[in-house]
Amino acid sequence: MKLLEDRILKDGQVRAGNILKVDNFLNHQIDAQLLDEIGREFVRLYKDEGITKVLTIEASGIAIAIMVAYHLGVPLVFAKKAKSKNIDGEVYTSQVESFTYKRTYDITVAQKFITPQDKLLIIDDFMASGKAMYGLLDICAKAGAKVAGIGICIEKGFQGGGDALRAKGYRVESLAIIESMSEDGIVFR
Amino acid sequence: MKLLEDRILKDGQVRAGNILKVDNFLNHQIDAQLLDEIGREFVRLYKDEGITKVLTIEASGIAIAIMVAYHLGVPLVFAKKAKSKNIDGEVYTSQVESFTYKRTYDITVAQKFITPQDKLLIIDDFMASGKAMYGLLDICAKAGAKVAGIGICIEKGFQGGGDALRAKGYRVESLAIIESMSEDGIVFR
Repeated sequence: MKLLEDRILKDGQVRAGNILKVDNFLNHQIDAQLLDEIGREFVRLYKDEGITKVLTIEASGIAIAIMVAYHLGVPLVFAKKAKSKNIDGEVYTSQVESFTYKRTYDITVAQKFITPQDKLLIIDDFMASGKAMYGLLDICAKAGAKVAGIGICIEKGFQGGGDALRAKGYRVESLAIIESMSEDGIVFR
Repeated sequence: MKLLEDRILKDGQVRAGNILKVDNFLNHQIDAQLLDEIGREFVRLYKDEGITKVLTIEASGIAIAIMVAYHLGVPLVFAKKAKSKNIDGEVYTSQVESFTYKRTYDITVAQKFITPQDKLLIIDDFMASGKAMYGLLDICAKAGAKVAGIGICIEKGFQGGGDALRAKGYRVESLAIIESMSEDGIVFR
């Protein structure tokens, strides 16, 4: 998506440790108009898949995912990190390794919100190693729900997570795939 | 907002400890169409205030706030809970007491995203005692930014937080104000 690639080139900042900071337009300060365009782009890609719900993980996936859900006309469900006091009853739980924080944490979704009748589109802002995604896919599997595909704003292609999922047969659509990045520049696939 | 009040009556569940669960349409599973209507309602209330940015706190405020930001045509900034590894440079920090979790935690916003030139609309899903809001207001004060007002989806009026803020001179617009609730029913102001 050229609009997103151009914005990354203009406002993204490369940091040591393979970090791309996009905090001024995507995940701390958020350009709502850009997110609406991003939402429409994911819908263009997935509108014929019979999606019943959008699934994401708190917190930086939520703003993007709600735009996708709105344009698709379906609900959004977001997985909660850590033990939530406000989820009663039955929950699905999985573990996620965070690339950014170098630790493992639990994610949970109330069972009533994902059923075998669901066909899900999983949305997130970044994909690096793909570890966060495996936790969400695990929850979908436990629920018996189908996964239509995965939608990622920015994939760090050089970290292999997206390609590993594609090799497993998942449809992974990333609006910007970074093949390499350094303080000298960013190269898209 | 009748649409929201009706939805609360239909899908909200009262729990012990003054908890109102709206997890099937507002803050775990989210009705994106409803949130768009909520966003439009807040814009109807605040569109003439010269708002430059919408401010909220992760995570359950984000989906609502991005809809408000989109319809207002301004960016959204969300305060992050706990120490964030991805906020470098100067940050504003404050403390928040959580009604739900009965503990205090830090919230942070990068200083570059709130300046004295800003006039903010603060959005959140719930207001109970108002403690979360004081943390956000503290950050606005530290930044020297003006606060046009506060927009809340569901105010638990009987807990007094909204009225205390109104008494201090803040404009607080809540789309549903609950005067009393029990397992027998919910009464709106």
